[in-house]
Amino acid sequence: MHDHPLLVPTVSDRAASGGSTMFDRLALRSVQSSVATAPVRFTLWDDYSVTGGASPPIATIKFRNRAALLGWVWDPDLNFGESYMSGAVDIRGDLVQLLEAVYRALPPARPRPWWRFAQANDERAARNNVHHHYDLGNDFYRLWLDRELVYTCAFFPTPQDTLEDAQIAKMDRVCQKLRLQPGERVLEVGCGWGSLALHMARRYGVSVRAFNISGEQIAFARERAEREGLGRAVEFVEDDYRNVSSACDVFVSVGMLEHVGLPDYPTLGAVIDRTLTPDGRGLLHFIGRDRPSPLNAWIRKRIFPGAYPPTLREVFEHIVEPTSLSVIDVENLRLHYARTLDHWRRRFEDSSSQVAEMFDETFVRAWRLYLAGSQVAFTTGAMQLFQVVFARNGSNAIPWTRDAA
Amino acid sequence: MHDHPLLVPTVSDRAASGGSTMFDRLALRSVQSSVATAPVRFTLWDDYSVTGGASPPIATIKFRNRAALLGWVWDPDLNFGESYMSGAVDIRGDLVQLLEAVYRALPPARPRPWWRFAQANDERAARNNVHHHYDLGNDFYRLWLDRELVYTCAFFPTPQDTLEDAQIAKMDRVCQKLRLQPGERVLEVGCGWGSLALHMARRYGVSVRAFNISGEQIAFARERAEREGLGRAVEFVEDDYRNVSSACDVFVSVGMLEHVGLPDYPTLGAVIDRTLTPDGRGLLHFIGRDRPSPLNAWIRKRIFPGAYPPTLREVFEHIVEPTSLSVIDVENLRLHYARTLDHWRRRFEDSSSQVAEMFDETFVRAWRLYLAGSQVAFTTGAMQLFQVVFARNGSNAIPWTRDAA
Repeated sequence: MHDHPLLVPTVSDRAASGGSTMFDRLALRSVQSSVATAPVRFTLWDDYSVTGGASPPIATIKFRNRAALLGWVWDPDLNFGESYMSGAVDIRGDLVQLLEAVYRALPPARPRPWWRFAQANDERAARNNVHHHYDLGNDFYRLWLDRELVYTCAFFPTPQDTLEDAQIAKMDRVCQKLRLQPGERVLEVGCGWGSLALHMARRYGVSVRAFNISGEQIAFARERAEREGLGRAVEFVEDDYRNVSSACDVFVSVGMLEHVGLPDYPTLGAVIDRTLTPDGRGLLHFIGRDRPSPLNAWIRKRIFPGAYPPTLREVFEHIVEPTSLSVIDVENLRLHYARTLDHWRRRFEDSSSQVAEMFDETFVRAWRLYLAGSQVAFTTGAMQLFQVVFARNGSNAIPWTRDAA
Repeated sequence: MHDHPLLVPTVSDRAASGGSTMFDRLALRSVQSSVATAPVRFTLWDDYSVTGGASPPIATIKFRNRAALLGWVWDPDLNFGESYMSGAVDIRGDLVQLLEAVYRALPPARPRPWWRFAQANDERAARNNVHHHYDLGNDFYRLWLDRELVYTCAFFPTPQDTLEDAQIAKMDRVCQKLRLQPGERVLEVGCGWGSLALHMARRYGVSVRAFNISGEQIAFARERAEREGLGRAVEFVEDDYRNVSSACDVFVSVGMLEHVGLPDYPTLGAVIDRTLTPDGRGLLHFIGRDRPSPLNAWIRKRIFPGAYPPTLREVFEHIVEPTSLSVIDVENLRLHYARTLDHWRRRFEDSSSQVAEMFDETFVRAWRLYLAGSQVAFTTGAMQLFQVVFARNGSNAIPWTRDAA
């Protein structure tokens, strides 16, 4: 783990900044004014402070040195996370409430032309990106995911359902949307720890070929398949989605599209186009946006290198229109992801001392910010969660109504 | 009606073509080879014939003169309809089966750059386009629509449901997707004969402002509202969607987007953006495509001037991304429109002698082809029917699940 980008020096290694100057105070006001309506107190290392919003402040953001302050002025997208992670910025108060106030106070995202330069991920880059996040150790994820280790948005029939039940409900919802029939061949790309593939085989009697480039996840999934007697029904393949070629009745991908990158969408579309049978159908489940915008710079640097959440328009432009596919159904589960992340974050906090032992405090702070920030992104609508069901254009094997079980 | 473009001379006015030449026969083979796999017999005026497909022919297409034959070689998209309508081409056998065989034998539509030059419809053009089709006389539409006069895709809970029930079910489905609450203000643009507006007010207790630029439809709708005691709950406004300004909790448009034209989508998006309340929601119901392609030339000339069925990508690119909207739900009801058109077509045939008295035989043939061709377009996937539900980005007044009633 010594090369991992989350291993950065903490602020205690750095020099103090002395008393604040007039320039420091102007910089603090500039930072505060970028989220003018948020009821938040901003404080310097010598306790000079500025408070915004109309109501009493819900939290305090304290800069512990000048470098952190200037980092926010220079590139807040990146350095909010950098300075919080290293401890150069402290937050007193509820992190989720603070982030929600800040998100809501930000001006609406303007269309930014540089989204067009979204990162392409060739096979090597994809493998590195995936290794960075998903190979942190199964023991780590077991601390705070559900017992099935489903690391994607759950579906809560009611908000009170448990995370365990909601992940089962999500998998059943995916299977029902896909109208799985016993004996059908399912192709899954990006299968995580294999929970959906095993669920499909166990409950719906299909055979599954499931692809993933995370070595740790594939090893875990294979072992589980053997243990559960599903080794023949489910084949776990450690390979890139680009190399998929066998025919399938059903194509499914849950939580992989975010890692593909816009420039490679036509490749993914071509994979679906060449593998799906004439009356086949498929489902893409992915984090998306209402308007194109790059992923936050800090999240890309520290959490999800190479990731990009697309708009529906981008998916349809690059995956549906150039192929023979037809969109049958789209559902937006944004609030369900906010709820899922709330569960994950609380479980993570409950295990934070174990996480600190596995990694260190910087890692804990980085993941705390990532989980809280993601929850707030879904609560406020900065992110969406789309499930898109498709078939071949002109196939009349599609269900008469989506309501039918 | 004397200026109506459906009033064209019939073939009996034209000179016969004599015996077929070698050139005529080559032309006939060329026409046949464009749909080589369709089991259809093509015949010239002197009974020279060519048959395609592997199975016995399901129908015969007979050219009654050389002009009709050359018209097909020159521009089949336009002249198939022109020559059938005028009687210069006769079809023996089942028209729907024939058209389906022809659609399925056509090569997949290639992306055509000229869709970019989709027609813009300013207020005057829009009024002329709408007058052309929707002001043919309410008595005409009453002959073959359901008793509510709903001239858009129905929703059949089962394929066996009657058209009457299916139109009621469609209106209820729209209302349920919109989660109408008593007392809310609904804005409807493109309200037809007012059936949905009246249904919403009657069954869901909302007030409705409903816009339409068809004078005949608005007059009918107003009279009906008065007769049913809904004159205060529903205001029918004879005006263009561009002039809508009052705030609304719910925005709905069923079957109008096809008439807007791509260049005016941003205008429609801006109308929704400026009228919808922060926690409002809306629904667009429209005929669409999987891949961009202009509407058939004959349909544009004779049936729907200025019309264009968009892809989801085009709608999201020009109406969702430039505004503050967020897509919540999409449903494709393609097969329901095929079924709806089958009902309309059968009812139309049952009344064809009355239609011929109202207009003439050319009109009957044109509408026969339009209804049969549209049915087949939905059966084969050339056309889709999308219902898109949206809210404001970040509004958490959206339903927890779409299943909830």
